[in-house]
Amino acid sequence: MILRPATRAELPAVLALLADEERVVDPASIVVTESYERAFTAIEGDPRNEILVLVDEDQVVGCLQATYIPGLGKGGAERALIEAVRIRADRRGGGLGRELMARAVERARERGCALVQLTSDKRRTEAHRFYASLGFARSHDGFKLAL
Amino acid sequence: MILRPATRAELPAVLALLADEERVVDPASIVVTESYERAFTAIEGDPRNEILVLVDEDQVVGCLQATYIPGLGKGGAERALIEAVRIRADRRGGGLGRELMARAVERARERGCALVQLTSDKRRTEAHRFYASLGFARSHDGFKLAL
Repeated sequence: MILRPATRAELPAVLALLADEERVVDPASIVVTESYERAFTAIEGDPRNEILVLVDEDQVVGCLQATYIPGLGKGGAERALIEAVRIRADRRGGGLGRELMARAVERARERGCALVQLTSDKRRTEAHRFYASLGFARSHDGFKLAL
Repeated sequence: MILRPATRAELPAVLALLADEERVVDPASIVVTESYERAFTAIEGDPRNEILVLVDEDQVVGCLQATYIPGLGKGGAERALIEAVRIRADRRGGGLGRELMARAVERARERGCALVQLTSDKRRTEAHRFYASLGFARSHDGFKLAL
């Protein structure tokens, strides 16, 4: 099992994870549109953004996006924002989510981040217990405005 | 009144706003350490991060940090994350916060962002009413893990 930045060849597998709500989506069924290509290129070319994939026996079984944010607080240290956390439907319940998050947190620590932050939909109470069990404090409310 | 990226010369004024809890902090009293300098340089050199200042008659009266995050959702559009929103203590209650946020949202829209997001400490119920009045939905819980 390894956590590393996604390659371009893994983009369909990542998009399949993002599309997957309840069951496994076949990466071969994913149409990689030009806007996905552009977004992936933007992320890959940005030293403060990465799509990380959890790979087990050459299979992408989980992913997340990490954004490292420079700021004036915390002695100038970066903070890591984690979004789009996914584990493939047929691999849930076996501790892979914990593996994915623990490794991403460790990666942020090694980079020198002072903090890891994320938001989770208020309805996802199971996810909240999961993040609390990893040591995260549910200290904030998350607000969104669609443009 | 104008909203624009902070200049290096305005860094003490921005740090004074960030240090200000209840009363105005004199920018002249701020020691700009090397770590602040480094963080400001990192933000200034990053096309997806900016410290925005609200300037009234050459005075910095408010600030925030905006981070524009590329992602694979929303048709590849960026999302804007807003942090460190401050209005100078002696200028609160006069609608400047609304001005600051409305302009920052407009700036994100012009850039092509699909969403603006932020988190606010759960104890700051007044801030929550303020963000709700700007159209933000309090849909998420915000989690933080100090490293």
